[in-house]
Amino acid sequence: MRVLGIDPGLTRCGVGVVDGSLGRPLTMVDVGVIRTSASLPVAERLVTIERGLDAWIEEHRPDAVAVERVFARSDSSTIMGTAQASGIALVVAARRGLPIAMHTPSEVKAAVSGNGRADKAQVGAMVVRILRLTELPKPADAADALALAITHVWRGGAQARIDEAVAATQRAHRPVRTR
Amino acid sequence: MRVLGIDPGLTRCGVGVVDGSLGRPLTMVDVGVIRTSASLPVAERLVTIERGLDAWIEEHRPDAVAVERVFARSDSSTIMGTAQASGIALVVAARRGLPIAMHTPSEVKAAVSGNGRADKAQVGAMVVRILRLTELPKPADAADALALAITHVWRGGAQARIDEAVAATQRAHRPVRTR
Repeated sequence: MRVLGIDPGLTRCGVGVVDGSLGRPLTMVDVGVIRTSASLPVAERLVTIERGLDAWIEEHRPDAVAVERVFARSDSSTIMGTAQASGIALVVAARRGLPIAMHTPSEVKAAVSGNGRADKAQVGAMVVRILRLTELPKPADAADALALAITHVWRGGAQARIDEAVAATQRAHRPVRTR
Repeated sequence: MRVLGIDPGLTRCGVGVVDGSLGRPLTMVDVGVIRTSASLPVAERLVTIERGLDAWIEEHRPDAVAVERVFARSDSSTIMGTAQASGIALVVAARRGLPIAMHTPSEVKAAVSGNGRADKAQVGAMVVRILRLTELPKPADAADALALAITHVWRGGAQARIDEAVAATQRAHRPVRTR
């Protein structure tokens, strides 16, 4: 299973692709950051993120996408941009019919390090070990995207299938009105 | 000038199209709401909003789009969905190269009623009067979208042109890195 992890952000959107399955060693396929300049209008920055994510999916053809779940209680100066970027990530994946899972930061910490309150350094060290890297990818957004992808392989796969089955059942009974 | 006003929301995304220019009577072209069911995954709801907004733009070919500016200090239970929906609205408009303006709720109240702290009823009454309607469109999200479009015709046009010129100048000097 190949998973694209996305750590949404307007200035830096982390992306990381991991190959693997539960109980087998995981491999990092690619990692990086989509950057947009704060001097541009938000709409253009979001389009850049959309195109960047599309390009990553085109290139790596993931089987699933894992997006960090954003909460309103996070740092409020950047939270709106983060939420907007997460909306773009969800749409880019959903348009292609890719299974999507959202994981909270503490779920990621727990999955990767065994401790939902682990600090950045602990999570980073585990990402390096799990993927057998020589050093932690930078910036932190890139490393966080890899942690999300690892989390998805380890905990998300089964849950995504359940969610999808539930959603399909609900869709069959409740058509969406678009207008 | 034809303006599409968008009041972003995940459950109800208000849309209103207004024709007019500064100093001349304004006309309502169309108004409505894009609804998505809370029982669906967020990603699918956002795709529904994206497709709905695309259809509105296709049908009405606006010259500009006005989107309500969302703040983190708003009602936190729905704020993340609202921010995600606003991100979709911005991307849908920006992909088509449409000028986009964002107006805050108090800017809209001030533009439409002359009072930045006007209540819903006052703003609604002014929307009815300005567009010479027989009754206020419902739900409130639809009426709010019309108020946004009116605001854009009255205050946004000049500002949008200035913003665009500034952005174009910045673009020429600072290319966006996408990776």
